[in-house]
Amino acid sequence: MLVPHEKAVAAAIEALENANVPSDHARLQVDLLVEADLRGRASHGLMRLPRIVERIGNGVTDPNTTGCIEWRGNVAFVDGQMGMGPIIACNAIDQLMQRVETAGVAVAAIRNSNHLGMLAWYAERVARQGKVLLAMCTSEALVHPWGGRHAMLGTNPLAIGVPAGKTPFVLDMATSLVSMGQIHDYALRNAPIPPSWALDAEGNATTDARLAKAGSIAPFGEAKGYALGIALEVLITALTASAVGRNVVGTLDSTQACNKGDVFIVIDPIAQPGVTESIERYLDDVRASGLVEKPVAVPGDRALATRAKRQRDGLELAEDVWARLQSLANQQPSNQSA
Amino acid sequence: MLVPHEKAVAAAIEALENANVPSDHARLQVDLLVEADLRGRASHGLMRLPRIVERIGNGVTDPNTTGCIEWRGNVAFVDGQMGMGPIIACNAIDQLMQRVETAGVAVAAIRNSNHLGMLAWYAERVARQGKVLLAMCTSEALVHPWGGRHAMLGTNPLAIGVPAGKTPFVLDMATSLVSMGQIHDYALRNAPIPPSWALDAEGNATTDARLAKAGSIAPFGEAKGYALGIALEVLITALTASAVGRNVVGTLDSTQACNKGDVFIVIDPIAQPGVTESIERYLDDVRASGLVEKPVAVPGDRALATRAKRQRDGLELAEDVWARLQSLANQQPSNQSA
Repeated sequence: MLVPHEKAVAAAIEALENANVPSDHARLQVDLLVEADLRGRASHGLMRLPRIVERIGNGVTDPNTTGCIEWRGNVAFVDGQMGMGPIIACNAIDQLMQRVETAGVAVAAIRNSNHLGMLAWYAERVARQGKVLLAMCTSEALVHPWGGRHAMLGTNPLAIGVPAGKTPFVLDMATSLVSMGQIHDYALRNAPIPPSWALDAEGNATTDARLAKAGSIAPFGEAKGYALGIALEVLITALTASAVGRNVVGTLDSTQACNKGDVFIVIDPIAQPGVTESIERYLDDVRASGLVEKPVAVPGDRALATRAKRQRDGLELAEDVWARLQSLANQQPSNQSA
Repeated sequence: MLVPHEKAVAAAIEALENANVPSDHARLQVDLLVEADLRGRASHGLMRLPRIVERIGNGVTDPNTTGCIEWRGNVAFVDGQMGMGPIIACNAIDQLMQRVETAGVAVAAIRNSNHLGMLAWYAERVARQGKVLLAMCTSEALVHPWGGRHAMLGTNPLAIGVPAGKTPFVLDMATSLVSMGQIHDYALRNAPIPPSWALDAEGNATTDARLAKAGSIAPFGEAKGYALGIALEVLITALTASAVGRNVVGTLDSTQACNKGDVFIVIDPIAQPGVTESIERYLDDVRASGLVEKPVAVPGDRALATRAKRQRDGLELAEDVWARLQSLANQQPSNQSA
């Protein structure tokens, strides 16, 4: 169903405020979730809000903290103190943005923080302010190694934001071939999945989505995509001293403290005249390098087209998502000690 | 043919010294080339040496310079002054290594430098000293965008090195599905290439390697691999103010000044007790996550196995590569002004 943008935002903020989330934290978290729905990334959108509320209720998310930063040089080692992912991350990034004015480059290595949501949101935020961002995080093991039979890696996404004239360049990709959410969609519809997507719990290839749910999903790009995914797993673990592989918990449930890691690298790019323009021109040349009737997409193009459409027409929310959101918005605020 | 390791090294150093390369620069360049041959990466090995010599002779590589660094905070903007790729890069990395002792993170953005060679060599070098390295560079456009019909991206490799106990973790991957060198091999043998590998000059899929040579090669991992490749292209261009896309020259010829960009990010990882060990254990768990008779490979495993074998048995060099190397080693040193 279509829900007007502003109406969805208001309900979501109210839902979080009812769960004792401070107003400014609620606004930031909702901006991120709604931005995902605007861009057609429902899996990272408002459907995630009930779990955030549940995690606060269960005491595994602290809605108030902005995290505790310990600097070593220009590397911020951040204890997220079980805070909300975007709150901890934005606080860290804001400090990196200040640092790079003189230091040129700064890094945040975050642990004990909750789900970050759509990384494109952070990349665009930083790139719009003229800086470059590399963002990456680990997550619960859902992906099997290339040639492996069991989930050993998170879907470990990577985002890169670069100032590029009017519209920043934004890459945001998981290192899995598909998402576990897609597998669940197929299972719900009782539809077979393509044979390359997943393994069952015994490590055998399967086209049965219900068996795949208990198994593992494939890395994208075969051996190379797996290699990138495991490199991110190892890199993030080394920098954040967070959990690794099958020890990562708290990104898919409502009861366990989240122990994955997040890394942000902010760099102040050289302000050479003409560079931004040459990147802009290059991206347009790439768009024009296909068939006339089928332009090539640059990362972010489809998301921004969907965004423009949904800002006009409203957010496309599943009926149960919107119903649950309204119910959370209309609840009595929970007791502060809940 | 098999050439003893030390014999190949000696001949290669002599060949470079004959081309007026200072002795220490020759040793570093040869160490890198031979390391590629040891690891079974012939395309980045001693077969590249004659072109290095030709480029020096043609005045588009300066064997003496170590580059000129201008610091902005902890970002080194490096003018490579047409120097040898590994000489410029190692000088920059050495300075980053010093910086990170207090700064925690430092970046080098290099332009006007020559071919870097195998990035794994740099990643391992840094990781062995306890630091994390991200290394990336652009190169001449050989790769078509996903859905595009012409080469618009370099093979843009990415390397990540992380300390991980006895053996550092090293990722080193191009963002193309195959290398143009592989296409040339097929063309020489008059063998058809798989249909997904390349397009001809008109942008149509082809299995004819000779037509593919004049066309473009596919990105790895379909849309996602293309997205990563173009992200690196844009990121590196923004940081180095180097050439982008089809304007990049000098990585495949002997006559044009090289105008691609290189980026190195060095980070001092948190020295938390147990982290390195947990990464080591994780990698062993991944290796054991396949079938008993077929262990899973972690990035770098195959290269190191090949390395051990070749260090024992000798380098596997093509006959013409070894003949050319010996001829360059036995030449009269060229006139300093040549």
